[in-house]
Amino acid sequence: MRLWDGFSITPRQGESLATIKIHSRRTLAQLVLKGDVAFGDEFAAGNIEIDGDLVALLVELYGSRAQQRSFLARVVELLFRNRPRSNTLQGSRDHIHHHYDIGNAFYKLWLDHEMQYTCAYFPEPDMSLEAAQQAKMDHICRKLRLEPGDRVVEAGCGWGSLARHMALHYGAKVTAWNISHEQARYATERAKAEGYDDRVRYVEDDYRNISGEYDVFVSVGMLEHVGEQNYSALGSVVDTCLAADGRALIHTIGRNQPKLMNAWIEKRIFPGAYPPTLREMMGILEPNNFSVLDVENLRLHYARTLEHWLLRYDDASDEVVEMFDPAFARAWRLYLCGSIAAFLYGSLQLFQVLFARGRDNTVPWSRQHQYLS
Amino acid sequence: MRLWDGFSITPRQGESLATIKIHSRRTLAQLVLKGDVAFGDEFAAGNIEIDGDLVALLVELYGSRAQQRSFLARVVELLFRNRPRSNTLQGSRDHIHHHYDIGNAFYKLWLDHEMQYTCAYFPEPDMSLEAAQQAKMDHICRKLRLEPGDRVVEAGCGWGSLARHMALHYGAKVTAWNISHEQARYATERAKAEGYDDRVRYVEDDYRNISGEYDVFVSVGMLEHVGEQNYSALGSVVDTCLAADGRALIHTIGRNQPKLMNAWIEKRIFPGAYPPTLREMMGILEPNNFSVLDVENLRLHYARTLEHWLLRYDDASDEVVEMFDPAFARAWRLYLCGSIAAFLYGSLQLFQVLFARGRDNTVPWSRQHQYLS
Repeated sequence: MRLWDGFSITPRQGESLATIKIHSRRTLAQLVLKGDVAFGDEFAAGNIEIDGDLVALLVELYGSRAQQRSFLARVVELLFRNRPRSNTLQGSRDHIHHHYDIGNAFYKLWLDHEMQYTCAYFPEPDMSLEAAQQAKMDHICRKLRLEPGDRVVEAGCGWGSLARHMALHYGAKVTAWNISHEQARYATERAKAEGYDDRVRYVEDDYRNISGEYDVFVSVGMLEHVGEQNYSALGSVVDTCLAADGRALIHTIGRNQPKLMNAWIEKRIFPGAYPPTLREMMGILEPNNFSVLDVENLRLHYARTLEHWLLRYDDASDEVVEMFDPAFARAWRLYLCGSIAAFLYGSLQLFQVLFARGRDNTVPWSRQHQYLS
Repeated sequence: MRLWDGFSITPRQGESLATIKIHSRRTLAQLVLKGDVAFGDEFAAGNIEIDGDLVALLVELYGSRAQQRSFLARVVELLFRNRPRSNTLQGSRDHIHHHYDIGNAFYKLWLDHEMQYTCAYFPEPDMSLEAAQQAKMDHICRKLRLEPGDRVVEAGCGWGSLARHMALHYGAKVTAWNISHEQARYATERAKAEGYDDRVRYVEDDYRNISGEYDVFVSVGMLEHVGEQNYSALGSVVDTCLAADGRALIHTIGRNQPKLMNAWIEKRIFPGAYPPTLREMMGILEPNNFSVLDVENLRLHYARTLEHWLLRYDDASDEVVEMFDPAFARAWRLYLCGSIAAFLYGSLQLFQVLFARGRDNTVPWSRQHQYLS
């Protein structure tokens, strides 16, 4: 670590991964007082610079922090941490607008061609991002045993790729919900232009307003934004809309132990976000007597996905600065690097939970069908 | 339903599945007062007889009961239900003795050749019981990525089949724990007689006394007997003995929603038994930052396993009566039929939960290896 006046601390043993340069006394004071939020803000402002491997440094910081959770540190954390903002109908709309409506052009710079902003699936770790995002959609469709003519409802459909994939490659009839105006508009226009809007309907509305009966309920990367206080409402939605032999899948970032989202990310990047533990997710299923059929943890797949995004993001850094400003560009770089570190360190998980009604005896005898090539 | 004096009730609509014959006024009174426990006891005593399909009748009873859970019914259930007996070190020994030490000869009559008294795995539903029990062991070994030389600890090893299988077919070095004297003696003598006691060591002791370091922790059909108050102790045992890149698997009967074991079964057949929900199982994993890698629900496989057991049990009914008495034979028949009904109805589940340490990045990229033939 090097301070504004040239004073520096080097590790007593081992090699140094990176140098943290803190440019002012004020920045150091902010760091001490406000922890993660200040680290993110000061990094974005350019008042902290990192020379070296940012991801490796953040993994190290996770480790040293886990070992040093003193009583005082916990009290300070409790006092200063941000509680996630509440996801009321209007709150959710504001939070999603904050993150997803900053411009499709921005996300196009570093996501795959199908604009999937969720964990890809790398059955072969060296696959391309494009192939892994296709593999993710097929893996989900196989888990759900999707058949031609199946009525699918998707809660939180991003830019519409999974709904499109289910309709075009599996012959499903999909209704896909999203409260992001930019995303819903993009998906609807594309469906119309490409001529499959008879098979996929995009609805710009909240998942709590879903109605009708469906053979399949699917939600990929929405639960992070739902908030635990709404799990019972989400469970009721699934219970109301799922057919007697329906299949359901929730794909979400999660935790091994309950913990709030990193305060800076919750404040600046993802307002209202909370990654649940499996125990907490049972609050969606238990009250409705849903039966968990299959849970898979794809933690390292999200680290790999983010590494691909980071490469593309760095390649496009000039365009990002031009689109926004250097502080925005640095903030998003920190967010991508911090997320890689969190998945590599095991602080974040990625759960795919497949479930059905408790009395449904049509479930298959093995998961072999998930692994047909 | 037909009473002792010839009075009978027939369904107003639909076909009758079976006739419940209640032989005395006293039996009917017991049923009203003591519910499930009286039903089991009076059935065993021959005071209730069922003409027709017992399993189908019990599935129906599950259904009608689920629909008729009035407030009063719940209060009565709360008042009369048996709380499971506590599984202290001595309590566990007594409870396990009650069930598993009633004689190996009895279990030999109706279990598979390897004496496996846990859910088999039928990737093809028409497999024989013997093949399905082998498939179960291989499925578990593949999930655990078992390698030659791996040090395995098994908690609750029954008659020792899985430990034997892991040593003989995968080259593992297994220490298998069991507090059932009859089972531990059988397993030890067989290992000595068949000459693999250098690779499998059976220990007659409680899982809470496990020590040493292992690459694999496995427990099949023990958690049902552990009791929720001991989940944190079990989690600590795994945490203490599992290597940094160790794999762990717990196979257990479970529930979608918390509910005590059927009172009669807990009282007469399985003292101290409690099938947990996934949420409750997280009490083993969360405090130790274990990461759930894979959950599979094999509910219908247990119904199928029990159907095989029932066929063999019925074939051996004369021998059972000779070994014990008609009441014992009827009680166990009710227990087998009731269990089939519970798995078919979805009142019971069968969870296989695979987990590892939270920081272990050696986990495989896909579950394809579970499905190599």
